Amino acid sequence: MIIICKAGATENDVRAVVAKIEKAALRPHVSRGAERTVIGVIGDERRIRREAFLLMPGVENVIPVLKPYKLASREFHPTGTVVKVGEVEIGGKDVIIIAGPCSVESAGQIESAAASVRASGASLLRGGAFKPRTSPYAFQGLGEEGLKLLAAAREKTGLGIVTEVLESADVPVVAEYADMLQVGARNMHNTHLLRALARSGKPVLLKRNFSATMTEFLMSAEYLLSGGNPGVVLCERGIRTFVEYTRNTLDLNVVPAVKAASHLPIVVDPSHGTGRQDLVLPMSRAAIAAGADGLIVEVHPKPAEAFSDGEQSLTPAAFNDLMTEIGKVAGAVNRSIIQR
Amino acid sequence: MIIICKAGATENDVRAVVAKIEKAALRPHVSRGAERTVIGVIGDERRIRREAFLLMPGVENVIPVLKPYKLASREFHPTGTVVKVGEVEIGGKDVIIIAGPCSVESAGQIESAAASVRASGASLLRGGAFKPRTSPYAFQGLGEEGLKLLAAAREKTGLGIVTEVLESADVPVVAEYADMLQVGARNMHNTHLLRALARSGKPVLLKRNFSATMTEFLMSAEYLLSGGNPGVVLCERGIRTFVEYTRNTLDLNVVPAVKAASHLPIVVDPSHGTGRQDLVLPMSRAAIAAGADGLIVEVHPKPAEAFSDGEQSLTPAAFNDLMTEIGKVAGAVNRSIIQR
Amino acid sequence: MIIICKAGATENDVRAVVAKIEKAALRPHVSRGAERTVIGVIGDERRIRREAFLLMPGVENVIPVLKPYKLASREFHPTGTVVKVGEVEIGGKDVIIIAGPCSVESAGQIESAAASVRASGASLLRGGAFKPRTSPYAFQGLGEEGLKLLAAAREKTGLGIVTEVLESADVPVVAEYADMLQVGARNMHNTHLLRALARSGKPVLLKRNFSATMTEFLMSAEYLLSGGNPGVVLCERGIRTFVEYTRNTLDLNVVPAVKAASHLPIVVDPSHGTGRQDLVLPMSRAAIAAGADGLIVEVHPKPAEAFSDGEQSLTPAAFNDLMTEIGKVAGAVNRSIIQR
Amino acid sequence: MIIICKAGATENDVRAVVAKIEKAALRPHVSRGAERTVIGVIGDERRIRREAFLLMPGVENVIPVLKPYKLASREFHPTGTVVKVGEVEIGGKDVIIIAGPCSVESAGQIESAAASVRASGASLLRGGAFKPRTSPYAFQGLGEEGLKLLAAAREKTGLGIVTEVLESADVPVVAEYADMLQVGARNMHNTHLLRALARSGKPVLLKRNFSATMTEFLMSAEYLLSGGNPGVVLCERGIRTFVEYTRNTLDLNVVPAVKAASHLPIVVDPSHGTGRQDLVLPMSRAAIAAGADGLIVEVHPKPAEAFSDGEQSLTPAAFNDLMTEIGKVAGAVNRSIIQR
Repeated sequence: MIIICKAGATENDVRAVVAKIEKAALRPHVSRGAERTVIGVIGDERRIRREAFLLMPGVENVIPVLKPYKLASREFHPTGTVVKVGEVEIGGKDVIIIAGPCSVESAGQIESAAASVRASGASLLRGGAFKPRTSPYAFQGLGEEGLKLLAAAREKTGLGIVTEVLESADVPVVAEYADMLQVGARNMHNTHLLRALARSGKPVLLKRNFSATMTEFLMSAEYLLSGGNPGVVLCERGIRTFVEYTRNTLDLNVVPAVKAASHLPIVVDPSHGTGRQDLVLPMSRAAIAAGADGLIVEVHPKPAEAFSDGEQSLTPAAFNDLMTEIGKVAGAVNRSIIQR
Repeated sequence: MIIICKAGATENDVRAVVAKIEKAALRPHVSRGAERTVIGVIGDERRIRREAFLLMPGVENVIPVLKPYKLASREFHPTGTVVKVGEVEIGGKDVIIIAGPCSVESAGQIESAAASVRASGASLLRGGAFKPRTSPYAFQGLGEEGLKLLAAAREKTGLGIVTEVLESADVPVVAEYADMLQVGARNMHNTHLLRALARSGKPVLLKRNFSATMTEFLMSAEYLLSGGNPGVVLCERGIRTFVEYTRNTLDLNVVPAVKAASHLPIVVDPSHGTGRQDLVLPMSRAAIAAGADGLIVEVHPKPAEAFSDGEQSLTPAAFNDLMTEIGKVAGAVNRSIIQR
Repeated sequence: MIIICKAGATENDVRAVVAKIEKAALRPHVSRGAERTVIGVIGDERRIRREAFLLMPGVENVIPVLKPYKLASREFHPTGTVVKVGEVEIGGKDVIIIAGPCSVESAGQIESAAASVRASGASLLRGGAFKPRTSPYAFQGLGEEGLKLLAAAREKTGLGIVTEVLESADVPVVAEYADMLQVGARNMHNTHLLRALARSGKPVLLKRNFSATMTEFLMSAEYLLSGGNPGVVLCERGIRTFVEYTRNTLDLNVVPAVKAASHLPIVVDPSHGTGRQDLVLPMSRAAIAAGADGLIVEVHPKPAEAFSDGEQSLTPAAFNDLMTEIGKVAGAVNRSIIQR
Repeated sequence: MIIICKAGATENDVRAVVAKIEKAALRPHVSRGAERTVIGVIGDERRIRREAFLLMPGVENVIPVLKPYKLASREFHPTGTVVKVGEVEIGGKDVIIIAGPCSVESAGQIESAAASVRASGASLLRGGAFKPRTSPYAFQGLGEEGLKLLAAAREKTGLGIVTEVLESADVPVVAEYADMLQVGARNMHNTHLLRALARSGKPVLLKRNFSATMTEFLMSAEYLLSGGNPGVVLCERGIRTFVEYTRNTLDLNVVPAVKAASHLPIVVDPSHGTGRQDLVLPMSRAAIAAGADGLIVEVHPKPAEAFSDGEQSLTPAAFNDLMTEIGKVAGAVNRSIIQR
């Protein structure tokens, strides 16, 4: 931690800061410049609070030197982590494709979706049973009935299931049916849910909140890791900006930025990230080119009849084309799309 | 709902749209312009899904005419709503001040805070027992013990209690102690929590998410209202922007914008909204001048020793000065600060 | 400047940084922590480039200690600056109101506007002769003819003229007619224009760019100040965010933040800042309550017939009411609206 | 244009709107719904102003149906435009690479940079002679001397020159030396400059402003096109968001979005877009995968000694590697990198 004094800080101000640092069993290191005195704090700064110094007389700013996340950092864990979901490995050489409808709507719909994404080469099946909707009047998901339909689709296709869990109380029931539990963007900061998922031991797909910095994103991962669950896969799904031509702004920069800062795998959701069917293919190609470890793509047998998110869902035929196209891009960056 | 056709839409495309509108028992109204055909949908558009039309051949855009919220709209309920928290009325002529520390830390701390804010004229006491923190290593609140300390402080001062609830399972225990339940910014989209609060019957302080539009903010209120709880007070607490001099960007424009669109009261949190002790007074004045029905202000006996948010907390003396100053501004806009 | 080394930086890396600091005739100050080595640079860091160190092996980050602006800082110039525009003083005890139409459209229009804002107590007349428009097909202003009409309006009313200048070549002609030259939001980064205005010696109204940080805003002021023109008045006019209910997000937080960081006066434009006629009054009140030194408000004799920005222009009657209302708020913060 | 009436609009309000539409020689089309009356305007809505209707009694909203840009739209010009810069074609099958230093610093530096980027396969040389800098104390470019050094580098390497022009008065001198004139992000809204460039007849590289919507971006292109210059190449270079790990947020979504809306070519600047040397390669790959027609990349013989933007500049060796890598990605999307 570095404490920058105001131009007008007195000798007494500086002495008080030094005393407070020493009281916390850390070592102060004072540099007196022409315009400013700067005091370095030597030792584990995570033990003290920034505010304790920020509000002292004569202090202008307090700058942390260490990152607030530790277990999620690449510094702590230099080699990349591979997360296993059943037989599927996320974070290895293969780029993994998770596909399926936004919501589970009926047995026929989820079976049809599962069969088609399986045939095109997806590795895992997505589908929402518990849906967080902006409107209280919109379809809120089939609940446990939806989980059962997902399990039946797994039975038929062999595809592992990725599905969202909305609150800590639902973790046991969702974990009973699903192979990977998804934390939605609206829940990235839900610490009760993160702690329950840490205890569940199941792999977690952690979606980035619309307005989360990378530090906040990795801090949510830190909740899972520090709670004892190493199976964390990050997911970029679009941030909120002023832009008008996409539903969200899919921020692919976060892919190489996360790779530099953390050892965790990261996948990309081009469907929610853009909200536009016609942008899913180009942004899927771009995501893989940027280094993503996988994609999560919305596919619906009949997008125009979807209960939710139809405007961003691919038809099975379009998804099949996408699989062909992204295979070429994966090859161009020395990876491959696993074809189950 | 208005359906705008593409320049190249064929007669068959238009006919298919018209047929689909009629099938939903609504009436189509076709306008053929020089460059575009536009089809109005007459009837209750909330019954159909926008996507069902958006994905049809020849359709360029589908624009809703009606607002998605109804119970929260001023159109539906022209006179302003007054929410009662015990004897305190929010949304009436008086501007209500809610004050207290970010977190309940100890009996001594909350008692001291409560006594001082009471003496300066606050109407309600705030204090967090369940804290949603970015870091798993930070203080997470005293839990039910904190609620008991808040209840003891109410006993001594007569001030009603406003405190945050983090998930639906905690609603009963928090409702047992608190007079008003707060939904934090991170939980504005937590539909399970909103539904549980709707059932609780207790007044709710609904904080705006960092990246929520006004429509989304009012849709969260709609969850509470449509669930049977009319006691909803909105709270602006800062949005996320590129700005570097405040922790968040306190968006006072939302105050008159909400007043135009909705009948619900709205209060402002200048402490989280700015993250800077020195901006709390000017932005409190500005909030009241913009038409806010109240403020929620962080006050701590010793901000430099606060477990959380010390850099934005006022000392009791600074809060006392603030109460004097904002009284003058309230008077200038024909309101008053109640002095209990 | 503080140089933070990577966890894995070698002794040689640190030595190379130290050598480079010494070569620049500055003094290094090395602190070795448990996880990181930190090197302070003592002396005037503005003489060296941050990148020169950032790209060295073993360096993780380089943090400036000094602010990049100097002449604009309150540290350099502790007392607030008062800028004179003719007899009008901006930055003193009085809150100054600048009012008039977005564009000068005709002799009748500007004369009528000038007479009405004069009658209601405005101190200066605004009106655009050179207009920066998003569309090449929109009205681009009357040019020099518009300046002549403004001068004629000054003749009749005695109000000084504030008008925009779009590029450096136009500074002489605009300076011939105007009392204060406005740099529009789109031109805040136009360094050629800023330098020409610095040479002009005329007072400048410098509008904040939609996406400017406060540091960038003050750096543009620094161009004017370092070029020899002390007559700089800042103007907040809304930033670009995700928000949908206002054209821009008027950021009043910048008012007290600028007051803390700089000695320059700051005024607020609630018309462009919100883009909504009905928000102009509440946000004008709020701006003055937040500490603004003045307002710049769009007033048009017939807003519905305005060539530009009609939806945010007040009628003369509404402006007259606004003047009454804001006088009360100014009084509540120990200021007054000058009534000429 | 579609005019949506308020719920409480009277018959007289509707009649007045209808009369105004007819007075403008357009045709009204009235749809009376259960909650709202909606009035379509048939004819060329660009001839009337939205505000003229927005401020009428009983009107809630006015929604344009037509896009404000015409010449830039793909609807107007269905096939993609190819812009020629000397022999180089931008917008065709080949992906074009523009490379070179941020600023021209000296004869040796620009010659060395030009030779190396030529050897690695770049098609055009970039380099700034007129620099728009945030700080008045920073290096502002060599001016015409820099243009001469660029011309000399062209002489030696055969590479065409792309360089920035800061204001309309400088267009003739820059056009004398350069093969393509760049409008920087800070100048995208500079209408005087755009008009002067339209008259110059030289191809223009139009960079997107940090906070420009796609509509605004294409409206700036419309200034060039409607002024008679068809040689417009768009350039995405990052937008301003809350994100902390990149200098700007490179928004690749705009690439396919522009391709859908416009016939103009679009290139991507991963150097300014990210501000990080280590993200240039992954985001270059991603840009080409997303469909970009080219890249503009900063390359400096010695980044650590660059006068500007060193932290985002590649060394010649890193650029050479980048050329190899992006060739593979171009192949994967059926394009190629021209190797001169």
